[in-house]
Amino acid sequence: MANKIINDPVHGFISIGNDLLLNILDHPYMQRLRRIRQLGMTNLVYPGAQHTRLQHSLGAMHLIQLAIDTLRSKGCAITDDESIAAMAAMLMHDIGHGPFSHVLEHSLVEGIDHEAISLILMHRINSDLGGRLSQAIDTFEGRCKPFLHQLISSQLDTDRLDYLKRDSFFSGVTEGTIGSDRIIKMLNVAGNELVVEAKGIYSIEKFLIARRLMYWQVYLHKTVVAAEKMLNQILRRAKFLAREGKCPEAPKHLEYFLRNDIKEEDFETDLTIKQFTLLDDSDILSSIKTWTESGDRCLATLSDWFINRHLYKIETSREQFSPDRIEASRHNTMRALSLTDDECSYFVLTGKVQSKTYSLGNDRINIMFSPNDIRDISQASNMLNLDALNSTDCRYFLCYPRL
Amino acid sequence: MANKIINDPVHGFISIGNDLLLNILDHPYMQRLRRIRQLGMTNLVYPGAQHTRLQHSLGAMHLIQLAIDTLRSKGCAITDDESIAAMAAMLMHDIGHGPFSHVLEHSLVEGIDHEAISLILMHRINSDLGGRLSQAIDTFEGRCKPFLHQLISSQLDTDRLDYLKRDSFFSGVTEGTIGSDRIIKMLNVAGNELVVEAKGIYSIEKFLIARRLMYWQVYLHKTVVAAEKMLNQILRRAKFLAREGKCPEAPKHLEYFLRNDIKEEDFETDLTIKQFTLLDDSDILSSIKTWTESGDRCLATLSDWFINRHLYKIETSREQFSPDRIEASRHNTMRALSLTDDECSYFVLTGKVQSKTYSLGNDRINIMFSPNDIRDISQASNMLNLDALNSTDCRYFLCYPRL
Amino acid sequence: MANKIINDPVHGFISIGNDLLLNILDHPYMQRLRRIRQLGMTNLVYPGAQHTRLQHSLGAMHLIQLAIDTLRSKGCAITDDESIAAMAAMLMHDIGHGPFSHVLEHSLVEGIDHEAISLILMHRINSDLGGRLSQAIDTFEGRCKPFLHQLISSQLDTDRLDYLKRDSFFSGVTEGTIGSDRIIKMLNVAGNELVVEAKGIYSIEKFLIARRLMYWQVYLHKTVVAAEKMLNQILRRAKFLAREGKCPEAPKHLEYFLRNDIKEEDFETDLTIKQFTLLDDSDILSSIKTWTESGDRCLATLSDWFINRHLYKIETSREQFSPDRIEASRHNTMRALSLTDDECSYFVLTGKVQSKTYSLGNDRINIMFSPNDIRDISQASNMLNLDALNSTDCRYFLCYPRL
Amino acid sequence: MANKIINDPVHGFISIGNDLLLNILDHPYMQRLRRIRQLGMTNLVYPGAQHTRLQHSLGAMHLIQLAIDTLRSKGCAITDDESIAAMAAMLMHDIGHGPFSHVLEHSLVEGIDHEAISLILMHRINSDLGGRLSQAIDTFEGRCKPFLHQLISSQLDTDRLDYLKRDSFFSGVTEGTIGSDRIIKMLNVAGNELVVEAKGIYSIEKFLIARRLMYWQVYLHKTVVAAEKMLNQILRRAKFLAREGKCPEAPKHLEYFLRNDIKEEDFETDLTIKQFTLLDDSDILSSIKTWTESGDRCLATLSDWFINRHLYKIETSREQFSPDRIEASRHNTMRALSLTDDECSYFVLTGKVQSKTYSLGNDRINIMFSPNDIRDISQASNMLNLDALNSTDCRYFLCYPRL
Repeated sequence: MANKIINDPVHGFISIGNDLLLNILDHPYMQRLRRIRQLGMTNLVYPGAQHTRLQHSLGAMHLIQLAIDTLRSKGCAITDDESIAAMAAMLMHDIGHGPFSHVLEHSLVEGIDHEAISLILMHRINSDLGGRLSQAIDTFEGRCKPFLHQLISSQLDTDRLDYLKRDSFFSGVTEGTIGSDRIIKMLNVAGNELVVEAKGIYSIEKFLIARRLMYWQVYLHKTVVAAEKMLNQILRRAKFLAREGKCPEAPKHLEYFLRNDIKEEDFETDLTIKQFTLLDDSDILSSIKTWTESGDRCLATLSDWFINRHLYKIETSREQFSPDRIEASRHNTMRALSLTDDECSYFVLTGKVQSKTYSLGNDRINIMFSPNDIRDISQASNMLNLDALNSTDCRYFLCYPRL
Repeated sequence: MANKIINDPVHGFISIGNDLLLNILDHPYMQRLRRIRQLGMTNLVYPGAQHTRLQHSLGAMHLIQLAIDTLRSKGCAITDDESIAAMAAMLMHDIGHGPFSHVLEHSLVEGIDHEAISLILMHRINSDLGGRLSQAIDTFEGRCKPFLHQLISSQLDTDRLDYLKRDSFFSGVTEGTIGSDRIIKMLNVAGNELVVEAKGIYSIEKFLIARRLMYWQVYLHKTVVAAEKMLNQILRRAKFLAREGKCPEAPKHLEYFLRNDIKEEDFETDLTIKQFTLLDDSDILSSIKTWTESGDRCLATLSDWFINRHLYKIETSREQFSPDRIEASRHNTMRALSLTDDECSYFVLTGKVQSKTYSLGNDRINIMFSPNDIRDISQASNMLNLDALNSTDCRYFLCYPRL
Repeated sequence: MANKIINDPVHGFISIGNDLLLNILDHPYMQRLRRIRQLGMTNLVYPGAQHTRLQHSLGAMHLIQLAIDTLRSKGCAITDDESIAAMAAMLMHDIGHGPFSHVLEHSLVEGIDHEAISLILMHRINSDLGGRLSQAIDTFEGRCKPFLHQLISSQLDTDRLDYLKRDSFFSGVTEGTIGSDRIIKMLNVAGNELVVEAKGIYSIEKFLIARRLMYWQVYLHKTVVAAEKMLNQILRRAKFLAREGKCPEAPKHLEYFLRNDIKEEDFETDLTIKQFTLLDDSDILSSIKTWTESGDRCLATLSDWFINRHLYKIETSREQFSPDRIEASRHNTMRALSLTDDECSYFVLTGKVQSKTYSLGNDRINIMFSPNDIRDISQASNMLNLDALNSTDCRYFLCYPRL
Repeated sequence: MANKIINDPVHGFISIGNDLLLNILDHPYMQRLRRIRQLGMTNLVYPGAQHTRLQHSLGAMHLIQLAIDTLRSKGCAITDDESIAAMAAMLMHDIGHGPFSHVLEHSLVEGIDHEAISLILMHRINSDLGGRLSQAIDTFEGRCKPFLHQLISSQLDTDRLDYLKRDSFFSGVTEGTIGSDRIIKMLNVAGNELVVEAKGIYSIEKFLIARRLMYWQVYLHKTVVAAEKMLNQILRRAKFLAREGKCPEAPKHLEYFLRNDIKEEDFETDLTIKQFTLLDDSDILSSIKTWTESGDRCLATLSDWFINRHLYKIETSREQFSPDRIEASRHNTMRALSLTDDECSYFVLTGKVQSKTYSLGNDRINIMFSPNDIRDISQASNMLNLDALNSTDCRYFLCYPRL
């Protein structure tokens, strides 16, 4: 029997003792995740945040195994096949991410998000592996015991339990860490649904507050936002040039996405799949360096700035920026850099970022006080502000060049 | 110049490069804190929680030094004398604690709390050290720049910053840890008052939630409460016997507190000071073992149970226990153990424990959005529930023997 | 089925899911270990080192379980009974320790070491538990598969794997930590003997060097030695006075050991067992405080010094101190303190401390390069100095009062 | 005054409060180090090892600051200019590294190592910054107080103190960690030379053993070697094709190094400097993906294997592989893959890797027992094997395809 042990600085040793899981791990689509940073360009602010989607995927798989062990020890019946399927689903859950994870999600490709691509790629791997992934895909899509699917995708899934801990570890924002070990020990099943035992309530409060901290301190840190917006504009300009017949130099698999408007339906073709699965962070970074010498001043300037971390200045506000304020910023920028109105749209931008700490939607976190008394965390906790939890916390931003 | 470096598993190396601080540390009243556990009998639930008041006092002194360094780097004027005085105050702030810290605070001595005793002992040390502690005592009592006193005693003082981190570390409840480093980096002074810079708001939210977690998961853990209540009853019985002329065997310095009703005014005498400063955890533990063979069945039974961790069964509730429920419990106990009504009061007890996460009192935590926009954390955070923060969270308990 | 989860700051959660192990843990003899510090008076140098024999015993039991899991996963047959017996043996292996662990091992009792007392107490618990510990005792004494006994007692036993990591953690000497997780993953069995797989050789080198570091930096730190020697002399004086009919005040269970010369054969009696198992650190500390007021000047002085950390001055040397040097020290001391020759023997002392990093004895650490190529670590490593490893590293010391 | 605080998961907060250091950090040549992994392709074995040269450079700068603080506190005179120069030197010490750090050091460029390139680039930055780096360059080259240069480059320099701790942290090989804090606290200066105080000897022993562990467990891990050798062969093939006029597709700045034999003297030209400083890991990874579709079967095959982690099988031995063994391997490979003799040289390779734990060269680690008794660690430690320390530990390897 195969058994692979992987050193993970976050969880310690991760064991994989199952051939199917090892086959998935060896598949080129999984290996690609070694070359995709979990947190996009966050390393421009937190230099330690270089960790990859592969590490996260392994960690999430590891945690679902621990969760299943806990549930079994409490008398919950889970077959070996169900367990392997859940682990496989977790290992592959992010397989559809493109370069820099979320950053370019809607720049390179339109009308399809990474979850949909993940599912398409899972089916491809399934056919490569002779159909042995069918139960994993069913599990991923929710055709399984409800609590298993909640471990894969809910507001307390092993995805979040891994990424909060991992992103905190690598960014060095130690406060963002969560007690994933304790939370997992507190999991149970009631009426086929995942619940947290009552004494775990403080851990859950802390998990939600830590998540909020990570959002505003790391994921939506204003300098991170500035970097990601700049990256988006570079790609937008490159696509614009490509459509104009002046496609900037790029590896073929990136050029494919610059020249063509790739949409959801294109993912039915081998060609698109082939190009997409060749794509990763390195193509973008390498090309942007080449583009610093582009004949197009817009592209050259932004590329140079991005590579040398000369990022937009960014202001944030809880209120929308006034049209006057934005116009003034555009005006200054156009004059200083001699830009046309259209070009200026790459240099001055506005928008908003937002995050919700906890959603009163379908996949709630349920606290079990007794088998007959199960309450949503927002009801169970008297500390957290119910309205604030469910409301979307939103910040407007205005980016413009440092002149 | 003297320089002592102490290894602290929580903060790393703690340097003491000042003679006055070293003289305080060498004083017998400080050394006594080596023999007083920070968390009373919490080690019956969390075996790692054996750490002492001395460790905490050193840690709190270390953190106030870091805080002062930060404030100075931001342009806040603090003289060397002010700095040493604040560190000395922090080093001695808990010097008045008796055996098992809070547990016996109102059992051995009446009508005086540990802060008052601390102050008395500081004055004694001051006269031993030729008056060199006068500024430290002034600082401890608030006759100093307001922000310095807030570092010593407020809802964000270095006392809490140390003990939450330390108690979390030694108990192994890793979730209780707080970002004391980051919070300290975010401190500033506005109008002579301590403030936290706005980007530290998430750290403060997390600090409050962590504090709440530590209260209910550790400090007020129900088994901890059961142990502490049992210890209180043992001492109450011993004092009762002493008053009856049947004082159980104990070292003289403990016997002094059993035989006499020591009150605040007694702390003006050398005799009481002498006896009090000889007292620590070891006397209580050693005596209780002797008392397991006491002729008084009440004392012998409770002592035996306590030493061998046969603790009361404890039930907790958000509602008061009904008189019927309590009476039933008393009835069962009296019959099973053949106790008189009076004796039963040592075996069945009820009461409440409570904690407030944040108080809207005088020493609030202020968040500085700009020099002109400083808001209380309960106003600044939209996540924390203002009403819940300020309300006292209370649990009733009922303890009775495991029969 | 019972299942207890204990929070351990060193290893995380320790689960005990077996009734026999829980019964052992609840036994008064085990509970006593809560009141015995693992490292005696080391907290006078490393204030964090307050951890107890109970914590270590739980940790060692936890590690042997992990080791057994690893061996089973490599195809080694170990029955559940063997596993429970090994865990039970590990849980109880230190049960015979007296106050301050090793410090008073030969002061209070003569001619019997803690291992022998452990065995006696195990037999007592065994009869309390209806003989269910017989296999555990067999395992403890080596009547079991050789590799199981090597996990319990050898130069790479789970005793050392726990205590090095734990003592490093609590003392804050982080360098002393060892890779117990990795070492355990590298264990295997060859010909019924415990071996380490070849790729674990660097971990073993590091384990030996870390052990040496802990000896000289912590266990035999010269101030620790000074404190322990002072404690020994206090007890020696107290016994001397007791024999002279002037026994200093002490709890009865300590008085028993002061008045009587307790030897190995006394441990056959219920009385000695009863007194011994009541004894712990608290009796010693509490009594020494009482003795600071003893009529015997010798006892009073040493007790006062010890309690207030006014320790002997200690010098160490790789050579024996010359008779002249010692005599000069005695002479000064006698004159300064007006001591008789006999009294002086409590104030000026000499002796040696020693440690061997690795012994070429019977229970070697074997490295398996292949099933047919198994070599002792001292042969397998080309880095460690074979002669130095096997030689005893020795330091002479001279203690005398700070005048 | 500028002050930047950077979060480092290894050392905590790193403060940069000096404009010159901030200017260096902002320079494009430094920013480039964000895109160069510290440990080449080690992430293929230890997925966490994604950290960059930039993080290491910041860490090493931070440690030299701590070391200077320690030396100053011990009375050693170091001016602020000397301190800034040393920090600047440390910040830039690795600036000449190319893609994947050491891996391609002699593949892309010939006859010049990264130290020489570092020096060239420092001079360039110096002229960009108006000559303000002259003292830093002097310090880097040893024209400064000897102990300062020893902190920058010796067997106990802050380079090693950072990278061992950092590489251990990110790889998850926790055993490789070293007590850099303690070692730094033990540093002192005697006769202008850096020494370690005697009580630090065990920390130094442990540092050397940890370094050895990291070499064989991480840096020279056999799968890491296989990956690096494959990468070398891919570049060698690409250069061969370029010389044949069939240069594979690549960004211009990489193509420059494929088409031309760049040697030391070329680094005198702006063109080479320009191309070199555009180059980083991303170009190599992106190009290799493109090359998986190369018309050259050799290049396409190796590229595909590398990207999908289908690495060479590697055998290692303390003895050289026999010509027969190698020939057999070549024979099998040629037949299986239908390769020519010349092509086979890319698929079957042999060589050796080696490491020396401690060198008896010029920059030894000196232990100070007293101002008059300073001894080399190899003499001072009786534990480490002098001969083994100084000898080069060497392993031969044979790589061939997994067929």
